[in-house]
Formats: sequence, structure tokens, C-alpha cells
Amino acid sequence: MESPLAALLWRSLRVYQVFGANTEVGKTVFTTLLCKSAKRNWQEENVSFLKPVSTGPLNEADDHHIKTFTTGINHHTLIQYGIPVSPHTAALASGEQIPSDNSVLARCREHASERAKAGKGWLFMETAGGVHSPGPSGTTQADMYTPLRAPVVLVGDAKLGGISQTIASFEALRIRGYDVQSIMLFQDSKYQNYLYLADYFSQKYNIPVMSLQEPPERLDNEVRDVEAMQEYYEQRTEENIVKTVLQHLDLNHTKRLARLESMAAKAHETIWYPFTQHEHLPAKDIMTIDSAHGDYFQTYSSKSQEHGALQASFDGSASWWTQGLGHANSQLTMAAAYAAGRYGHVMFAGAIHEPAMTLAENLLQGTGNSRLTRVFYSDNGSTGTEVAVKMGLRAARVRYGWGPNEKLGVIGLKGGYHGDTIGAMDCAEPCIYNENIEWYEGKGYWFDYPTILCKDGKWQISAPEGMEKELGQPQGFASLAQIFDVEGREKKNDQKLYETFIVEKLQALRAQGRKFGALIMEPIVLGAGGMAFVDPLFQRTLVKVIRRSPHLFTDEHGVSPRTEASKEWSGLPVLFDEVFTGLYRLGRFTPSTFLGVEPDVSVNAKLLTGGLVPLSTTMASEDIFNVFRSREKVDALLHGHSYTAHPIGCQVGIESLKAMQRMERRGEWDWAKNQGWVAPRRPESCSPAPPSLASKTTTPPGQGGQVWSVWPLDLVESLSRMKTRVDGVWALGSVLAVHLRDEAGAGYSSNAALGLRAALAQGEAAGSNGPWNVHSRVLGNVIYLMASQTTTREGVEQLSNLLVKSLE
Amino acid sequence: MESPLAALLWRSLRVYQVFGANTEVGKTVFTTLLCKSAKRNWQEENVSFLKPVSTGPLNEADDHHIKTFTTGINHHTLIQYGIPVSPHTAALASGEQIPSDNSVLARCREHASERAKAGKGWLFMETAGGVHSPGPSGTTQADMYTPLRAPVVLVGDAKLGGISQTIASFEALRIRGYDVQSIMLFQDSKYQNYLYLADYFSQKYNIPVMSLQEPPERLDNEVRDVEAMQEYYEQRTEENIVKTVLQHLDLNHTKRLARLESMAAKAHETIWYPFTQHEHLPAKDIMTIDSAHGDYFQTYSSKSQEHGALQASFDGSASWWTQGLGHANSQLTMAAAYAAGRYGHVMFAGAIHEPAMTLAENLLQGTGNSRLTRVFYSDNGSTGTEVAVKMGLRAARVRYGWGPNEKLGVIGLKGGYHGDTIGAMDCAEPCIYNENIEWYEGKGYWFDYPTILCKDGKWQISAPEGMEKELGQPQGFASLAQIFDVEGREKKNDQKLYETFIVEKLQALRAQGRKFGALIMEPIVLGAGGMAFVDPLFQRTLVKVIRRSPHLFTDEHGVSPRTEASKEWSGLPVLFDEVFTGLYRLGRFTPSTFLGVEPDVSVNAKLLTGGLVPLSTTMASEDIFNVFRSREKVDALLHGHSYTAHPIGCQVGIESLKAMQRMERRGEWDWAKNQGWVAPRRPESCSPAPPSLASKTTTPPGQGGQVWSVWPLDLVESLSRMKTRVDGVWALGSVLAVHLRDEAGAGYSSNAALGLRAALAQGEAAGSNGPWNVHSRVLGNVIYLMASQTTTREGVEQLSNLLVKSLE
Repeated sequence: MESPLAALLWRSLRVYQVFGANTEVGKTVFTTLLCKSAKRNWQEENVSFLKPVSTGPLNEADDHHIKTFTTGINHHTLIQYGIPVSPHTAALASGEQIPSDNSVLARCREHASERAKAGKGWLFMETAGGVHSPGPSGTTQADMYTPLRAPVVLVGDAKLGGISQTIASFEALRIRGYDVQSIMLFQDSKYQNYLYLADYFSQKYNIPVMSLQEPPERLDNEVRDVEAMQEYYEQRTEENIVKTVLQHLDLNHTKRLARLESMAAKAHETIWYPFTQHEHLPAKDIMTIDSAHGDYFQTYSSKSQEHGALQASFDGSASWWTQGLGHANSQLTMAAAYAAGRYGHVMFAGAIHEPAMTLAENLLQGTGNSRLTRVFYSDNGSTGTEVAVKMGLRAARVRYGWGPNEKLGVIGLKGGYHGDTIGAMDCAEPCIYNENIEWYEGKGYWFDYPTILCKDGKWQISAPEGMEKELGQPQGFASLAQIFDVEGREKKNDQKLYETFIVEKLQALRAQGRKFGALIMEPIVLGAGGMAFVDPLFQRTLVKVIRRSPHLFTDEHGVSPRTEASKEWSGLPVLFDEVFTGLYRLGRFTPSTFLGVEPDVSVNAKLLTGGLVPLSTTMASEDIFNVFRSREKVDALLHGHSYTAHPIGCQVGIESLKAMQRMERRGEWDWAKNQGWVAPRRPESCSPAPPSLASKTTTPPGQGGQVWSVWPLDLVESLSRMKTRVDGVWALGSVLAVHLRDEAGAGYSSNAALGLRAALAQGEAAGSNGPWNVHSRVLGNVIYLMASQTTTREGVEQLSNLLVKSLE
Repeated sequence: MESPLAALLWRSLRVYQVFGANTEVGKTVFTTLLCKSAKRNWQEENVSFLKPVSTGPLNEADDHHIKTFTTGINHHTLIQYGIPVSPHTAALASGEQIPSDNSVLARCREHASERAKAGKGWLFMETAGGVHSPGPSGTTQADMYTPLRAPVVLVGDAKLGGISQTIASFEALRIRGYDVQSIMLFQDSKYQNYLYLADYFSQKYNIPVMSLQEPPERLDNEVRDVEAMQEYYEQRTEENIVKTVLQHLDLNHTKRLARLESMAAKAHETIWYPFTQHEHLPAKDIMTIDSAHGDYFQTYSSKSQEHGALQASFDGSASWWTQGLGHANSQLTMAAAYAAGRYGHVMFAGAIHEPAMTLAENLLQGTGNSRLTRVFYSDNGSTGTEVAVKMGLRAARVRYGWGPNEKLGVIGLKGGYHGDTIGAMDCAEPCIYNENIEWYEGKGYWFDYPTILCKDGKWQISAPEGMEKELGQPQGFASLAQIFDVEGREKKNDQKLYETFIVEKLQALRAQGRKFGALIMEPIVLGAGGMAFVDPLFQRTLVKVIRRSPHLFTDEHGVSPRTEASKEWSGLPVLFDEVFTGLYRLGRFTPSTFLGVEPDVSVNAKLLTGGLVPLSTTMASEDIFNVFRSREKVDALLHGHSYTAHPIGCQVGIESLKAMQRMERRGEWDWAKNQGWVAPRRPESCSPAPPSLASKTTTPPGQGGQVWSVWPLDLVESLSRMKTRVDGVWALGSVLAVHLRDEAGAGYSSNAALGLRAALAQGEAAGSNGPWNVHSRVLGNVIYLMASQTTTREGVEQLSNLLVKSLE
């Protein structure tokens, strides 16, 4: 979805979309009846018929039919093609420019919006052909119209085979989130499909099926034909059947609005929210989400009756960093449903199924990490991290001969965060997230580190305050790519200061008698810790120092570093938490290639399922796996969850990895790379990578290479120059983070970003696409916006403009 | 699914099911072509056409068509109705007994099995009408044939509207787990659906679409009509198009078998299994699951070529206790897909959406627990437990004024187990599951308790060995219901011994200065701890003692017990882990009604989604919720996962709770209750509850009342009398646990159950339904079988027979 578009919901106007189970099932007759009955039974002037796309000669068009058989009905066709074939064929044959899906939807919205202004009433939008008949662009209508989220009247098929057509069409709509509220079809005395369908839909879905006598056969004499049809309409409108349907629709409309209106208050009384101080969350601040599509939620808005009850809200946290392929992506839905239909869930201990096998193979292949050979499944980043830590600690304990009572910690980075279960919490230094939790006990040592920001238009690396002596003075770079050229910087011995700092610290810890069982860190970006953008050279150096220094971790003699070629862990097992940063969030399959080092264990989640269901994988090397092999069951990795490797998650994972890898292969992010990140630009300030590096599409590990974001470099620079409010900015992959100035100090307790968040939530005045705004999350003084992997250039532009405007 | 049925897969016979996108799309013509081409191109004698159900006059039937236009093709119709209408209408009109779905499938299997014996070849099964045209029983064919899992050739619709029909039909099949391998349709020069469809299916699904010239118009002269058609067939068979399709199908057949054959070895090299000592898991012991339906996996079996490559394996652990409504339940699939299509996933902090709201409301209402008002969502039982513990400990700390450094433990039961994340592990006493885990540190005190078993035909309560003095001598009861009549037993002061035991122990712990922040336990059954069946009176007494005894937990003066009416926690917050035992696993919405006490916090998972995707809820009382309210964010419950309250899980939860509640309301488990559990039987031995209690359908909390299992009381008694091998047996709800005798001692390290497990895995000789066996899990000396909530009487009978035979 390119632009925000508010779905069709007004208090005044009841909008229904009429889909047909087939062509020639009487959609127009039923829509005409609905219009006539609405007019008669509701005594309302505002009854409308809209045909978004129509094909065939004008005098046979549905619009013509409405005109002939009704009076006082507003009727309109948006796009008319003369040839009586499917719209995609007709559009091609017309020789005119083919309208995009978005433009058709925008025109529907505009029309509906006009009708809504005319006061209380009804609008029936009749689709063309069957549910999956292609629209002008070739997208099938069931896919094309989903963002409108108008409830549906489905016209069933009364003929032989019509039961099948009706159910299959219903399902095609339902799995796209449509609410089919009524099914109407003709009575055919021979097949009596309506009897079967009435039973079927009432039992399974509690949806009423209404059947009507068929219209008269078409007569050759046109005048008599019209008369016969008029009589038919008259009789049917007299009957209470269509009126009953309308009453049902009207009731549903009222209920839907009432539910949207009341849900926040109910949630306020019933839901215990994650990571939320309820004292700061009045009911009015709870966002009610009606649905979501692409990058946008449809959220309830009580502000304006005129512009409708829903607004498009950009999902600026990518739904807690999970979204990759857009909300309600129908390919992912189909993948999930296929696995559900083939397996449901099947237990995984000692068993294998196709989705779990294929996802494991694809992940191992995709990372290109020559150490990783094993995949352990669990449910989320937190459990995946606990698994990783259990793996790492055991491996170290066994090799270094530590007893079971030896207290082991991890080495990490300050502000690192790995999840909310106690074991994952214990990997993080004491901070606001955990210090109040009863069983939390931080187990480790957490390093300070230098971070990257674009400040006043220049890329810089800075040490945290007061650490300049240890970690270096702030240093400017010509481009982000130059910072990421870690091998080039090593050639210039840039890492020496880091090495000294790390070694001295490790020696001091050793002198204190502290013991460590693993290094665990988030490569490149520490998300929950405030979107800290870490110098990759520091992380690379940390790994390299640890790997060559077993003597800093053990009293055992003769433990020498393992060679790189052996693929065994060395010094300490290196665990990368790639839950947030992995799988193209930063533009690459794995962020470890930025560092040019391969972890021994890697955790993925979030984007793994493209943003659909929980799933996590912990990949490990064979030598760590082998530590757990013995004759004793008790030596095994005794961890597992009931839904381990659930087929739905695995199948969706396969589909979403495939989709993102295909996008990369096909260069579908080239538009983003070309926004100043890759092509040569001004030589001074935040300039791009040298072309020689930047033009490579596949990047050899550690060589810097392509560093790019969907957020334009221009935007990053401009924002970074707003010095009164902005401290610094960075962007990588689909993430943009703006560190705001806070005189009271940065960090989690800062309120500096709240004003900007409110401005983004205020959004834009309603244009023809209806109101839209941005839902964003802040981390102290940092506000971030996260696009999905399918966000378009247009979407980014709109957001960029709003962001700049809000900060000015 | 009533009986096990092996899916249709033989090395020799390539079985394909031909579905149509509509009626009259040429299914029979294409099937005839496939048969003719198979015969000609493969030079195989064994080419077969099967019409499971046919309607219409015999001389117009598809079978007749095949006879006319082919030679040497084995053709057969299983069920023929004379009237040319949908099979369900024809079946009704025929006046004959309507065959069940299972009987139709069994006959298909039998026929295919015969054909497979005839050597290498092909079998094409042509369905009737469209994909959702109802079969004889009224079940639509897409639902009816899923257990056969034959790959599909879909015949598309070439007419106007046919694009929609073809895609919708494809989707109806795909979301039921069918593998559509080829789409064939006629060429219609006007609509050219094949062009669009070829693009569509190759891009989205990589499925080839093959189109063929249409057959000649039907001629009035029958002889010439046959000639024209013969010529058409001759020409089409000469072309390579159908041959290409067959080659594609043949290749897929080979690939499918090769993948099934190789997957265990690949998994052995790639997967790190949960809770598995890999040293004990050779590749050959890894079970390859092709698919699953109802209570049965379809597992790869290399044993017998004759009986096919798949066998039906009863999912005896209900897939780690998750299954409720059967694998691949299409209602749950539709619920999941609807939510995916409407939302994907949407972030939950500070937001609300319909599925999360409704599930929360339904859960709170369903439990009927007057204390619970709040729902916190997380991903699995382990995270749900950590949330519960965080809630409980904080509440106690705040009320009792303990500082942040106070070491708090939980009170639990020995053998209790709550999950594998560190925080959940810490709630369990040291045991084989956790004692080797580096960061595990059991934090609490765990009570011994008396357990229930049917021994030698009599229900008994026994204390663990050596605890008879404290917990009472073994005591016999007339029935299980009598044991569960906890109020009746209290009237007889049966709880006094328990009270004394509990109070003395708590006093001793207090004297040691130990501090506790919560009681956490699994009501009635401790699952992972070896299926211990706890005397409900003991658990009830434990809760009651704790609630009236704040003085045993605090030094503060003046902390008196809260009244029951206040709904506030008293003594300690009482947390019930109902992950395994809740939501009808033991026959009731919540097992807390067996105890007649209401917990302050209750955790659910597993059955919550009917066995489809991970989801957990932690419900809490308002006074515990209020403890976390303050002006400080840091006081909030800082816990959350990315996919918290993911709409798919919530929607599936709504659907599965509704389904189980409906089953209860409609008395759909009456057959189970009547298997000796409820109706009066022999007065001596394991007799049922007195009729006065037993006949009640709704059970007042704590009054004993209906205690029943899907496993017949007779079976429990018979097994319990097999004294040489069996120590005791119990059954409740869908769980049957057999404690086997092990002279070397019971417990997790016992191997006593392995022989029985192997016998069950050996299964039954292949009958006409093909081979079947039982996949079961053991916990030390205990073997358990767990049915789903939709298991039928027939299924239970077959399993019971096999179990008895295997133990004899």
C-alpha cells in the first residue's frame, strides 16, 4: 500500500460491498433490491449505488439497470470499459492508462466520503464478476479491496455447483479479513442450494442466508421485459425479506461502531498491558485497532464524524519490530492456513515435518555462517535467548571444567536487553526494565562502547561521556560506509585502543575471580536499550579479543585458542541476539556480516515470521551441540515448549524469508539504496560509500560494503542539523532513530520525545484519502520509526515530510 | 475422525485426486486424458480411474465415458446415485442408508490399496462437482477427502468468471493442506483465463498451469459424437502437453517419497531437539510426519511397501498436551486465516483489537472465578508462569513491606513443573529437568502430598513412601467421585491431618527465617512431574491454610486474613498453573472447581488455542493488578513479548473455547460420562458417584459432582488389576495414566514404560484402513494416553483394545 487510506466507516453512512460467488448470479438484481428497500424502509434520501469498475456496453451496465428500475437512488460508475470481459482484460484493451489499485481505492473513498456528507444513508458498492475476478491492474478484487474493509453482502450461486462456488468465494473473502454479514441468493427449486447454504453458514459462522424467488426470464420485447422486471422488483420490495437483511446490516453497523467506541474502556478494565504503567494509561489513550493492512493500522477515531470513524495510522514501531511484509499479507495468510490445514500443530520432540525441516535448512543456508549447523526452535526472542545462554554456559563449563556450583556470568554490552523472562533478564545489566523485578539478578559484566550518530550533518563515533580516554575522542567520518569498513579501519590500526580497553577490563575481572561463560550481544543496534548504534569495529574487536584469549577465562593450563578453521568456539562461546537486527531489519540477512565475524550461536525471531506469529530459532555450531551429547538424559538441553516448531510458524517463516530474499535478489530495494546511500554525492558531510565498495550487491563479510536505509540520507542529514531539538540521528535498513536533546539528561526516563510523538499522532488533516497519522513508540529521548521491508518510496516520503514538519 | 486411516501413498502407485473449479469444467475429459496418456507414455498396465461418488444416469456417468473412450483402463465407481444433483441431495433422495465420510474414505483406501498391489501405475480419483460440493453425508468434498492427502490436479474454469472460480477453489484446497500440483483448463480464446492463471500460479505458488484446446461441441448423432470425441482424445494424447503434466506429477511423486525417506537423516544432522538426549536418538527413531488429521498423524513408514508409505499414528501425547479439537480442524484454520487477513499481527502495548478483547472477556466469564478481572497475554505456559510469579511476588513484597533484596521463594508441590525458562524453572524443586542447568536455582519449598490411584480395581489415596504418619495411611474409596467430594470429606474432618501437616511445616519454615511470596501449583494433576494425581482435598486444604495464615509469612503485626468476600489475596497470592489441566483437559473449564477454591492468578496455554499456535494468558485479580499501579513506570509489570496477544492466537482461542463450551452444553461428552463414570454400576469396587451427585451437569464448586473420563471406567479397572506389570491407573477428562511397576524404583529414570511404548508403536496389522499405531510419550514409569476433546467412542475403543492387548 503506497499511501495511507482511511477505511470506509462513517456513523451516518452504512457502506456495504456486494461480492458475487460467480458472474451471473444476480449481484445487480440484489443490489438494486437493497437500494430500493433501503429507500422505502428507511425513508432516507441518501441511498447510493456505486460501481467502482464496470465492463460491457453502457446500456447493459449495472448503472443503467439501477437507473431504469429505481428512482431517487444516487448511482455512479467510477471506471467504465466498453468490452464485456474481465476488467484487467478490458483495461488492457482500452489503450488507456491502467489505474493503480490505490487510485481505485482512493476514488472509492472519495465517493463514499461525499455520500457520507449527505447525511444518514446507505451505499452499496457492487464488484465485478466473482470475488477473485481481477481488477484493472490485474490484482484480484478480493485482494484489491481489503484496505477499504467494508462489510460484505455475498450473492450466492443458485445453480448446479453453486454450493461450492458460494462457500469457496466466502472463504476467499474471510481469509482476507472481510466480514461477510449476509448471504443472498436466488431460489432454484431443483438444486435448492439455499437450503444447504442456510444450514452451513448458520452452523459454522452464524451468518444468515436469505433466498429470493428468481427474476422472470428475459423477454425479447424490451418494454415488456422492463415491465416484468419492474413488477418483480415491486413484489420483492413488498416482501419483508430484503428489509430483514437491511435490518440485520443496520444492526451490525450500529454494533460495530458501538464496539469500537466502547472497546478502549473495556480494555481499560480488563486487560493487563505489557510494559505499561496503567496509572499513565487512561482509557482514552488506548488505541482501538479495527484492522491493519500494509504499513497502516485502521484505528478508531472519535475526533471527526465528518471524516469517518477510522483513520490510517502508520505502524511506526513495525508492531514492536516484527513487521516485514506488511500487515495482512495474503501470501503469509495462505502459508499459515496451508500449514494449519495440513498439520494443525504436531509435537516436535523426536519428530520432523516438512516446514520445520525446510525452514531450518533455509536459515542455515541464508546466514552463510560457516559455524552454524544446528537449529533449535522456541517461541520468542526471550526463550530463544535463554536457550542460547544455556548452550553457551554449558559449553564453557564443560571445557573449562567448572563445577555445577561455579557462578557464571555473561559478558555483554551496557544497555543490552534480551527479553523479559528471568533468564534473559539476567543477561542484562541492572536497569529500569529489570531492577525492580523480584527474581532478577544481573549475571555478568557489561562493557561500555562507542556509538555512531549523524550530528549536524556529519557521521561521528563517540565514546559515552567520561570514557573518551579509554574509548577515544569523538571522530568524524566521511560516510557511514566508511565507519562500516571495519577491515579498512583495522589496517589503519583503529582498533588498538579498543583492544587495550577490552583486554585490561577482562584482566581486571579475572583478577577479581569472576567467571564468564559466554559473550552475548545484539550486533550493531541495541534496540530496547535506546536504539544505541554501536561502532561495528568495537563489537568485532570484542569478539576477536575474546576468541584469542582463553587464558583470560580459565585457570586451566594448556587451553589455547581454537583456530578459525576448526569452527569451534574459542575463549568464550559468542552468542548473537539478532532478534531485532536480523533478517533484513538492517538491510542484510544477518547483521553479523557487518562485523565480519561469525557467532557460535545466533538467535532470531520477530521478522522470522514476517510479522505474523511468534517463533524463534537458536542456531548453534556443531561443537556446542556436541557438548550436550552423552549417555545421560540429564546432560541434554532440557528445554522445550509445547508449540516448539509449530508448523504454522515454520511455514510462514519459509514464505517470509523467501519473499525477502527474492526482494534482495531482484534489487527491489534499489530505490532506497539510491536515496543518497550508494550513488556518489557531495564529497563533504555525510557522503556515501566510495562507488567501488558501494556498487557491490553481495558484500564479503566485514568489508563494509553496502550500508543503506529506506530513510533517505538527506532526511537523516536534515534532521541532524535541527540542533535545538535533535542531538543526533541514524538510519540503517528500515530503522530511523532520532536522538532528541534533553537538558535533563538522556535515557529511558527522559520525556524529550513525547512531544514529537504527540505531533506525529496528531497526523495530517484529512485529504481525499481520509485522515492519517503515525503511531510511534519512544525509548526515553529517542524516537524511532521503523518501516516494513515492503514500505514504498511514497510511504517513506510522506512520513519524512510529516516528521520534518513536526520537528520544525 | 472415528478410526485410524492411513493416507494414500505408495511407491508403486501414483494416486492423484482430480478436483474441479466448478461443475462442467471438463474434469472427466482431463481425467480421461490423464489416464490415456499415462497408459501410452508409461507403458504401464496399471492405470486406474476411480469415481468415489457419482450422480446421474449410468449411461451418462463418468465411468461410462472412460469405458467408451479408453481401453485397458481399470475404472470403477464406488457409489452411484441415479439423480443428476449434488451427492448429498441424491443420497437423501435415494432412500438408502447414507454412507459416512469415513466409510467413503475407507473404501477409497481399500480400492487404492488393491490397485497398488497390481504394481507400478497411476490412479486418478475424480471428485464430483466443485471443490466444496457436498459429499453424500453433506460434508463438502474439500473437507471430506483431506485425510487421504492425495495430491491434486485442479481442473480450472475457462469460462467468464472462471479466473475467480479457479483461484477460490485452489485456495479452498490449499487452506486444507492439499498439495495442488497441477492446474489444467481449456483454452477459451475470448476470455483467455489460462494466460492470467498461468502467470498467477507461477508467480505466487510456482504451480504450472496447462491449457488444452476445448473438446468439440456435442453432436446430436451419437455415433458421430463419439467419433469426434475419439478424434479429439487421439489428437490431445499425441500432443506432449498432458505427457508433460504427467512427468511433472511423476517427478513430484518421486520427490515426495525421497523427501519423506531422507528427512529423518537430515533432521538428525540439523535439528537440535527439545528435551532430547541426541545420543539416544538415532536417525531411524525420528518420526517423519507427513501431515495430521483429527487424532492421527500420518507418519512415514519404510516397513512395508505393500501397505503403503504412510501409517496413521494416534497422537497419544495430544502433541505435548496441546490438542483439543483435532489436528487440521478447518474451523480453527479459518479462524486463524481470518485474523491473519484482518490484522496480521498488531502491537498490543496500549492498543486493543477485537480478538484480544473478546478472548479476554470469554476467559474471565468462562472460569467463573469471582476473583479474576484482568488478563495478561504472553506466548506460552512458561512465560505465562513467569508473569504469574512476578505478579505474586510483587504483591506479597509490597503488602508485607519486604525490601528489594529480600530473598523470596514460592511454595509449591514436589514434582511441580512450570516450564523451561529460568524463572519458571526456579519455581520447581531441584530435579532431573533442571538440576544441571547453569542458572537454575530452585527458590521455594515444595510439599509432599497424597496421591490417587486405582489399584487392583479400587480407588485409593496414598501418601508417598515413608510419609504415612504425616499424611495418612492408604485409604480406599467407593469411587473417584467420592474422593472428589471434598466438602463431604471435610464434614467428616478428613482434612485435619493435612492441616496439621501443613501448618507444622509452614511454622518450621518460618522459624528458619524463610520468606515466601506465592503459592504456585498445578491443580489436580502434576503433568511433567510424572502425571501425579493429587488428592484434591490436600490442595484445597493447602490453599485454605495459607489464606487464613498471614502470620506464618510476615513479621508485620496486624496483618489479618482478608475475607473471602473482599476477593483480595490472603496469606499468600495463590497462583494456579492450569496450562496442562485447564480448559477441559480434565473435563471442566477450570480444574479449580474440583478444589472449590478460587486462585488469585491463573495461567492458561496449550488447549487455549485448541492445539494450533502458541498463546498464553495469565489472569489476575484486581487487587494484585493494583499493586503495580503507581506514578512510576518502574513499578509497572515490565514484561511483554513482541507477539503479545497476536490476533491469530486470540481468534483461534475464541473459536476453540466456543467449540468446547458448545460441546459441553450440548452434552457431546455424555457417551464418555456414561462409560461407567456417571450411571450407577456395581456397588463394590471402583463404583461411580451416587446418582444424586452424578446426574448434575453443572457442578457447584467443590461439591465433587461429575468426575469422568473419555477412558472407560472398565478399562481403568481392568488395567489396574494387571498387577504383575501395573502399579496403578487413573483417568480423568481426556487423560489416562498407567503407572507401571518397576522393581528398580519409579520416577523419571525408570525404563518400565518403554516396552509398552514400543508395543503401542508396533501397532496393529494393516486392515483395510491400512497400518496404524500409537505414538506415546512416557514419563519414567508412567505411560499416558491423551485424547483430544473430539476423540470419538470408536477411537477410544480401538485404543483401549490395543492397550490391553499390549499389556497382556
